[in-house]
Amino acid sequence: MIDFEAFFKITYGLFIVSSGNKTKGNGFISNTVFQVTADPPRFAICCNKNNFTADFITRTGVFSVSILEKDTSPEIMGRFGYKSGRDFDKLQGMSVKYGETGVPIVLNESIAYLECTVSQTIDTGTHLMFIGDLVQSAVLESTKEPLTYLYYRQVKKGIAPKNAPTYIDKSKLEASKPSVTFKKFKCSSCGYLYDEETEGVKFSDLPDSWTCPICGTEKSDFIEV
Amino acid sequence: MIDFEAFFKITYGLFIVSSGNKTKGNGFISNTVFQVTADPPRFAICCNKNNFTADFITRTGVFSVSILEKDTSPEIMGRFGYKSGRDFDKLQGMSVKYGETGVPIVLNESIAYLECTVSQTIDTGTHLMFIGDLVQSAVLESTKEPLTYLYYRQVKKGIAPKNAPTYIDKSKLEASKPSVTFKKFKCSSCGYLYDEETEGVKFSDLPDSWTCPICGTEKSDFIEV
Repeated sequence: MIDFEAFFKITYGLFIVSSGNKTKGNGFISNTVFQVTADPPRFAICCNKNNFTADFITRTGVFSVSILEKDTSPEIMGRFGYKSGRDFDKLQGMSVKYGETGVPIVLNESIAYLECTVSQTIDTGTHLMFIGDLVQSAVLESTKEPLTYLYYRQVKKGIAPKNAPTYIDKSKLEASKPSVTFKKFKCSSCGYLYDEETEGVKFSDLPDSWTCPICGTEKSDFIEV
Repeated sequence: MIDFEAFFKITYGLFIVSSGNKTKGNGFISNTVFQVTADPPRFAICCNKNNFTADFITRTGVFSVSILEKDTSPEIMGRFGYKSGRDFDKLQGMSVKYGETGVPIVLNESIAYLECTVSQTIDTGTHLMFIGDLVQSAVLESTKEPLTYLYYRQVKKGIAPKNAPTYIDKSKLEASKPSVTFKKFKCSSCGYLYDEETEGVKFSDLPDSWTCPICGTEKSDFIEV
């Protein structure tokens, strides 16, 4: 018996993982960044094989991690988490620092960053795990708290995109839940779907100040579907 | 330039990772448990090569993860986090369930658990990373929050043991900080050392209700060293 709800009890942060060079780069929202050894400092990240950034990491052998702040805006989450760099230049207009290896490091709404060179690549199935040796690290905002996946899900009402290691196929989640009537509400701006069943909170119970986690559109501009 | 403080901005949960069989087993406190693929559900853990549990995982090819609750007691943290199973039977007297593979699963102060069979073992240097396919998972307490590493450090004043991937050699941390006068206080029961410099909070500023994060001894029973 597999209870998918158990997966949500694992704590994660939220990060922008970037790769590339000064000419061309890309980044995506990841919740799987973690230290694997203390001496030397080594960090691992997971990346879907279809992910545009995976190509950059494989080609350049470098990646950076921007640790997002608790109040990261829907614009940053939408830009890096729910859109592909194949369609537009995600780094265009962003505040980007280039690391010692030339890798782009996104500074927007980040409290710290890491720069790594890949030492091992592991094929875990649908995803690649890259293990990187630390080149440099810095704190940008010492007083702000990091964004956690739990906070993003519970307070910001965000969902994992399809390429995330923690993405849950809704049909599987539904199969393990009792049958009740839930509604869906669609953002009239970006099309984001708020599903009462997945979220566990009725749309009418959300505060009036609640906005679309993707594009920031007001609650009153959602339409029942 | 490496700022070790940046490492503390990465969010982790805290878990008991166990292995073995119905006859003999062991478990340790880990902060590196994470999902690596969604389909099939696969999870990774990191374990120091010197860790007694690493031997069990290598020999049996199975491990379990107990996701600790926010208010995990100092007794559980001390038993599984700061002592070795080479010296005593950590599972003795604990509430243990044996999984489908026979692996012990610690239920004490846990809100959910996972049971996995090892599919890949990766040598990352001082540590081994085990990637496991999920056999079963369950939620034990749906309303309680998970314990996070940040909460354990900031509120519980806990420190990472020497075998943790996130352990920081105090001399390295000191080198990146300005010089000020800090004191150390020792627990008269278990010998735990409260270091004002590492903790960032003066011992006298801790509330009177504060207790040793390892064994629960009262603040008044600490001695300045």
